[in-house]
Amino acid sequence: MNAPATASTLPVGHGDIAAAAARLEGKAHRTPVLSSRTVNERSGAKVYFKCENFQRMGAFKFRGAYNAMAQLTPEQKRAGVLAYSSGNHAQAVALAGSLLGVNTVIVMPLDAPQVKLEATRGYGAEVITYDPKTASREELAARIAQERGMSVIPPYNHAQVVAGQGTAAKELIEETGPLDYLLVPCGGGGLLSGCAVAASHWSPGCKVIGVEPEAGDDATRSFHSKTLQTCHNPDTIADGARTPSLGSITFPLVLHYVHDMLTVSDAELLRSMFWIWERMKIVIEPTGALAAAALLEGKLAARHDFKGRRIGVVISGGNADIKALCKLI
Amino acid sequence: MNAPATASTLPVGHGDIAAAAARLEGKAHRTPVLSSRTVNERSGAKVYFKCENFQRMGAFKFRGAYNAMAQLTPEQKRAGVLAYSSGNHAQAVALAGSLLGVNTVIVMPLDAPQVKLEATRGYGAEVITYDPKTASREELAARIAQERGMSVIPPYNHAQVVAGQGTAAKELIEETGPLDYLLVPCGGGGLLSGCAVAASHWSPGCKVIGVEPEAGDDATRSFHSKTLQTCHNPDTIADGARTPSLGSITFPLVLHYVHDMLTVSDAELLRSMFWIWERMKIVIEPTGALAAAALLEGKLAARHDFKGRRIGVVISGGNADIKALCKLI
Repeated sequence: MNAPATASTLPVGHGDIAAAAARLEGKAHRTPVLSSRTVNERSGAKVYFKCENFQRMGAFKFRGAYNAMAQLTPEQKRAGVLAYSSGNHAQAVALAGSLLGVNTVIVMPLDAPQVKLEATRGYGAEVITYDPKTASREELAARIAQERGMSVIPPYNHAQVVAGQGTAAKELIEETGPLDYLLVPCGGGGLLSGCAVAASHWSPGCKVIGVEPEAGDDATRSFHSKTLQTCHNPDTIADGARTPSLGSITFPLVLHYVHDMLTVSDAELLRSMFWIWERMKIVIEPTGALAAAALLEGKLAARHDFKGRRIGVVISGGNADIKALCKLI
Repeated sequence: MNAPATASTLPVGHGDIAAAAARLEGKAHRTPVLSSRTVNERSGAKVYFKCENFQRMGAFKFRGAYNAMAQLTPEQKRAGVLAYSSGNHAQAVALAGSLLGVNTVIVMPLDAPQVKLEATRGYGAEVITYDPKTASREELAARIAQERGMSVIPPYNHAQVVAGQGTAAKELIEETGPLDYLLVPCGGGGLLSGCAVAASHWSPGCKVIGVEPEAGDDATRSFHSKTLQTCHNPDTIADGARTPSLGSITFPLVLHYVHDMLTVSDAELLRSMFWIWERMKIVIEPTGALAAAALLEGKLAARHDFKGRRIGVVISGGNADIKALCKLI
């Protein structure tokens, strides 16, 4: 980053998000926006939760995967798509592939939860497992992709994936009107940067704030130091935010469009997650609770005066492993 | 029951439900109707879930309590309302009282969960506790009501409570169009009979089916024998259906308007409840899962041919004690 980026030199603009929204029309769910009297009273603000836990396959990831895969050429579609992920991106690519008639291969670790392996196969993907102790998934994926001539769709560092994720914020603002703050979970920054681009256009003046797990605070450090920081395999319950770093696409977008970054501890995250289960009657996964936790646990209040303001909070997903989480309550 | 009832001699008609709906406009939430591709594929039917877990105070009970209390005379409103309940009816009466400016007294057992005592007080009610080992709540309630000149609002055996509960089915049918089946949880029969009256008018031909816990099958036995049966303190996780029997108002309505009754075991109930948490991303309480369990566990299929039909399923509430339920997963 020698010279500061300008919007016109950045890889994703609001036009990409508007085009993604048109592509997703009738394919992705227009997820509900919920509010809670208790949250409003407790925070002293008007809070709007964009509930991507109700998105197809249970998380926002479908938006980006579908948007990227819909733009492949007919040849690329015939050759198929490969992704490596043990999380929501795997199911997103599998489902988008089944809707677009594109064969998909998902490379997943042997020890991934059986339920995730089955869900990914259930959406019609071919699952290839590898032993994480002896193999590198990147090398394996690259080899298979080359052998079969397949396109690789990465989980976040891809302009059309970012544009797809940004449609969540566009829909939210269309429903609520202009916002003063928008809180967004951050792993590799795909959702955060897409939502920040959207907010800058459809709700100018809205401060977009990313929220990371404390143990995986690489994006927060990258944001403040303006130099890409990494975090190797962070120990956090927020499995969707265990990414090593922002990417070459998402980092400049975050630097340009995001106003602040906050972190929450796993204890705060779990407390907020269960509180939302119990009080708002919706099931959200730990990663999905990041932005809500920053609000509910006073992290936002420590740095921003939001009393009386209008705050959007993105709930990013609901694929909670109930059995495992119940042990942590 | 010497002679069969006719609609005109019954205590609640569709006109009462239409009037209740007008009273509840802007006061109760018009709760969402959710569907699930997985449920539709698994059942071979089109299934519509009416989600009263998103109702104010977390259950359908608000509808009946508000509808009944809104019709008190100014004198009765000044004197206040008393209810005895350790469950959702307590919070419903407390909340309705706070909205209508009516003082409320709720008689609750000393050993009720602290969270329920606090929630009821949080809605502005005066809570009077009693020792269930040494006192009868009916006698205590009657004494306090008489001393203070208060009206008692019962949890189900009251025509205007039944009419209020019926608005849930009216809203559902307005949103989905005519249904072939409507499955409704049954405790004292307030929700079931109200919904059955509504369906008979707004979706004629719809078969309304009540679902009870196996251990508390008094309404099922009453329905089949056409004689009121009771069940003392049934041992079931469905705490909202631990009622001793249908009432003098609800029993004739159930006999006249309901087409069948089914039961589900606690194991079936919990399995369905957790499945809905995990797959549909909504938190529902055990009692709230009764009707869904009859569908998901094959109980409906054993007696009715519903393939290709349109089925409404009422999810009655979402006030789940997450911590306690997590121990049962």
